[in-house]
This record gives sequence, structure tokens and C-alpha cells, in this order.
Amino acid sequence: MANVNRQWVLAKRPHGKVGKANFEYREGRVPKPGDGKVLVKNLYLSFDPTQRGWMEDRPSYLPPVKIGEVMRASSVGEVVVSNHPDFVPGDRVLTGGGWQDYCVVAPTGGPFGLNKLPAGVPLTMPLSVLGVTGLTAYFGMLDLGRPKAGETVLVSGAAGATGSIAGQIARLKGCRVVGIAGGEDKCKWLKKQARFDAVIDYKSEDVDARIGKLCPKGVDVFFDNVGGDILEAALNHLAMRARVVLCGGISSYNATKPIPGPTNLMNLVITRSRMEGFIVIDYMDRMHEAIPALLGWISAGELVYQEDIQEGFKNIPDTLARLFTGKNIGKQLLKID
Amino acid sequence: MANVNRQWVLAKRPHGKVGKANFEYREGRVPKPGDGKVLVKNLYLSFDPTQRGWMEDRPSYLPPVKIGEVMRASSVGEVVVSNHPDFVPGDRVLTGGGWQDYCVVAPTGGPFGLNKLPAGVPLTMPLSVLGVTGLTAYFGMLDLGRPKAGETVLVSGAAGATGSIAGQIARLKGCRVVGIAGGEDKCKWLKKQARFDAVIDYKSEDVDARIGKLCPKGVDVFFDNVGGDILEAALNHLAMRARVVLCGGISSYNATKPIPGPTNLMNLVITRSRMEGFIVIDYMDRMHEAIPALLGWISAGELVYQEDIQEGFKNIPDTLARLFTGKNIGKQLLKID
Repeated sequence: MANVNRQWVLAKRPHGKVGKANFEYREGRVPKPGDGKVLVKNLYLSFDPTQRGWMEDRPSYLPPVKIGEVMRASSVGEVVVSNHPDFVPGDRVLTGGGWQDYCVVAPTGGPFGLNKLPAGVPLTMPLSVLGVTGLTAYFGMLDLGRPKAGETVLVSGAAGATGSIAGQIARLKGCRVVGIAGGEDKCKWLKKQARFDAVIDYKSEDVDARIGKLCPKGVDVFFDNVGGDILEAALNHLAMRARVVLCGGISSYNATKPIPGPTNLMNLVITRSRMEGFIVIDYMDRMHEAIPALLGWISAGELVYQEDIQEGFKNIPDTLARLFTGKNIGKQLLKID
Repeated sequence: MANVNRQWVLAKRPHGKVGKANFEYREGRVPKPGDGKVLVKNLYLSFDPTQRGWMEDRPSYLPPVKIGEVMRASSVGEVVVSNHPDFVPGDRVLTGGGWQDYCVVAPTGGPFGLNKLPAGVPLTMPLSVLGVTGLTAYFGMLDLGRPKAGETVLVSGAAGATGSIAGQIARLKGCRVVGIAGGEDKCKWLKKQARFDAVIDYKSEDVDARIGKLCPKGVDVFFDNVGGDILEAALNHLAMRARVVLCGGISSYNATKPIPGPTNLMNLVITRSRMEGFIVIDYMDRMHEAIPALLGWISAGELVYQEDIQEGFKNIPDTLARLFTGKNIGKQLLKID
């Protein structure tokens, strides 16, 4: 075991784009776990658009990361030292290890807890399709979207880690699924591999017009990861009693000024529709419902997912920035060297 | 019975403010009712912000009023000739008579139907507190807002025909109720007569700051009749799992350009909140639930309402315009001379 614990700490709150300038590299001692705690060596880190929000000093669903604090992130790692009867060295775990080599965690501590990986499951899966992004898709689509067979479901950020799973779940429920994504590669993957019924390339197509064309009976469920103009376009095409699942708004996360909302919220009134937000951490006690369902669909070949795995501790801040460039297809991860 | 049927027909679709220029005065013959129909003489007309939307040529929850067609409005009138077994001359009825002296209606026709007034009920009541505006408040607040005792309920357009009833219903359910209205008179009425717990005068106060001050535990239900900046301010103060009832958006109805929506829709995600629209015509089969409840509260002195009754057929178009000036306190009506 190394003596050094490499860390990236938050150095400067973001204004506009995030990147290296917001973080500072530090080296510390490897911590020692107290009673009932374990020491985990992080192997993979998860990157999520919502992490951008944690860097800001404003109230949200989790407290802001403090200046000088290790950047928060969920991780998969290996138990190195255990002072807890349920864990032994070598156990593979899912936790919120943050941007560092080693972390000390208690099984009940923090928003991410400490969960042993099911046997036989690939190491990265609990950070992607079985992790926060897959669970977000599962509960957001099923609990809030409530898709019924024959309905039309529209997904923005459809090639992303959450959107791609959300759309496929709707397809598995018998819906016609239309995805919005940026660029040919993503659109091709959505059509061919994820078997979306239709795809709109927002980089080259008129999104509003294409939604109208591809959803002639209107959109029953809109699962939104993007916000902004895309949300406005979708609201123009709501079916009666539509459900708009507000999952994220990546279009505004790096904005330096407030981005105006849709001008057409009154369409929610005209169509008697609902727009609802949620945070997956509220559903953690229902993971036992979602995980077997997702695993079942994956093993039956009904649900596909992609991971974009960057490598190297030094590339951690750039990998967060990468999320907002639209370059990643599927779940953004990083393997610690 | 007169021979002449005075009418105001839609002459020009609105751009910006509505007023006389959008309508044309005409005189026609008094129509004769066919089999199963009755002839009604209108006595009172209802004015509602939503009528502004009916004048526009775009899809909504009712078809647009056509150019040259009598302007649509609900009305209370008296049956003059009846070719239907359930009605006799002299019956007082609630219907959708429109801006004219006489109309022919079938008991099942049109979005407003033809309903006999309950005995002993004042003539204007079925257009105000027992009419579309009162029912909108009842179902919007109870079905969508679902206020629980001890919660904080915020109402915009609180001195209006719908807002004032919505707020009082929340008070009757044991909530702390805060209203937003424009001007001293309205605010005083809300505090003294309608017994709101607190009132914000948007004409003289910083709405966002005042909501924060008056709703220290956040807003559990926001019943919105206004939209725009007021909606944005309310979204800044949502409690967890708040319900935003989108009833109307009068701030934008006369706009000539699209009005940007709130910049802070992501607050719906952070607080796991819901924003939902509705149209009262969907609840017409549940009127039997609402009317006795409203009448019961009124006769117990628990629910007060105001009517602003203009007079004179020639003043009909100006009375619609008046709705958007904020001058009326309570339900805007007109008595036909």
C-alpha cells in the first residue's frame, strides 16, 4: 500500500465552464480507519453533470463541497483495511470516495453509503447502468413518467448515461421512443444499438419541427436532461395529460447568467400536464427493485449501455469538463492509475 | 320580447391589449329555438382572463372564436321560449350565452351546458363563487394543490375571483395562507375580509424577499394565476415536495412577444416538486361535490367573495379590457341593460 493519498480538492468555485482551474492537486497521508470504519482504495470514479452543482455555494439537495475539500464523487473501490465486521480486505464496494486514492467510510455514512458489489458484476457497472445514472433513469421514467404501452416517449440527452437507459425502459414498456442527441455517432448508436424508434440530431436538425413530425399524436412523456430550448420545443408538442420528467438541465449548468425558461409553460395548462423534478437519492431504499430489473434486461440483451472510460489520476478535472462538451457517449468514468 | 338581438362579434384577433377595436357591434333577429332547444335571454355575463386566449387563432382547450362569430362567454339568463320538456319560460339558467341578448341552446350543447340555478341562490353567484372561477379554485387547490394542515400556501392574483377563493379554501384546510395582490385596497380586503394570514403588495414590495420572509419554512403549495416574475420568485422558495398549481398566467396574456419563463425551473428538481396545469371543464361532472361545499362555507361565513359588476351592453368590450388593468376586485361581471 502506498503512503501517499493523492487528492483533487475544490480550489475555486466555478463561473461558467468547469475545468482544471477550479481544482488543486494535493498529496496527503493515507488515512487510518477508526472503529466500525473501513479504508477503501478507489478504482473508478463516476462523473455526473450534477457534480457541477455541488461545486457552487448555494443550497441544493446536498451541501456544497467546501473550498479545500476533496471533490465529491461516487466511486467503486476495494476495501484495504476493515474495522467493520461486515467487510474484509478485497471486498469490492460502491461508495462516495471522491477524487482521491483512499477514503475512510462507515457503512452508513454519506449520501452514497458503502455497498458491496454483487458477485460477477463488472466493476464499472455499479457506477453506470446499475449506478446513480441507471437508477435515475429507472425511477424517473417509471415513477414519474409512468409510460403506458402505445404512448410516445421523448428523451433529451438520449445518448447520455441516464437518457439512454430511460428511453430503453420506455421501449420495454411498449412505448414509441424518440431520442434527441447531438451528432451522427450518438444518433446511430441510439437507433441501432439502443433501438430507439427515431432520433433527432439537435446539431443538424430543427428540433421543434422534428418532434412535431416524429410525434404526430403528441408527447406523452418527456424525460428531460437538457432544459432550455429543447424543453421549450418539447412543451410545444405535449399530448393531453403529459408527464414532463425534469431530470436535469445540462444546457444551463455552465451558464454564467440565468438562462430564461420556456416561454410556453401555459401549454402545461392547456394540455393538463405535469412537470416534476426528482433526485435519485430519495429512492435508495428501493434499489432492490431496480437492480434485478435492470440486470434482467441486460442479460436478456434488451438493455444496452455504454461507458466512456478515461484513465489517469491527473486527468480527473479534464474528465469532468469533458462531460459538458458532449464528447462522451454514455456514462463518463475514469480509471485511477 | 324585443325583436332585436344585440351582439358583439369578434372582428380582429388581438395583438397586445384587447379592447373595443377587436369587436364589432351588430344587430340581428332574435333566433327561434328548434326542437329540444330553448331561447335564453342573457342577464349577466362573465369575464375571465382565459377569454383572451379564445380570441387567438391557435390550438387550445377550446376552439378559437371565429372572426365574425359572437364572442364566447358564460352567462346567467332567463328562459324565454322552451321547446324542451325540462325547461319552462322564467327558469333562471347558467349557460354559455356569449356577448348577445339572446341565445338558443340545447341542454347538452357547448362547453358550458345549460343548468338551472338552484332556488334561492343569487343570480350572479353561479358566475362567480359557484361558477367557473370558484370551481377552478376548488378543484385546483384541492385536487392539484392538496394542502395539508400546517402547510404554507402562497396564492398569486390573490384578490381575483379564483385566487381569493383558492386561498380561503387552503385556510379552511388549516394552512397558513399568503396572498400576492396589487394595491392597498386589495391587500386590505384579503387580510380583513378573506382572512389571509399575510399579503404581499407586488406594486410596492419586493415579492421575492417578502415570500422568503413570510414563508420561512418554504412554500408547500403555490397557486399561480400570474406567471412571469411572480412565478420565478415563488420557485425560489419552494419547500420540499411542493405543488405548483398552474391556474393561469395573466402576466403574459396581453404580451406581444413570448415572455421568457422562470430561470429557476431546476428548483423543481432540487425540491422534488411538481408543477401542474388543469382546466376546470374537466371537472364538470364533479360539480355536485364542489357546490355544496362552497355554499356551506359561504353560509357559515367562512368564505367571502367579491363581485365587480359593470353595466350596459355597450360596455362589454371595455369590461374585458378592464380585467387586465387590475382594477377589478373579485369576479368581473356585467349586467346587461
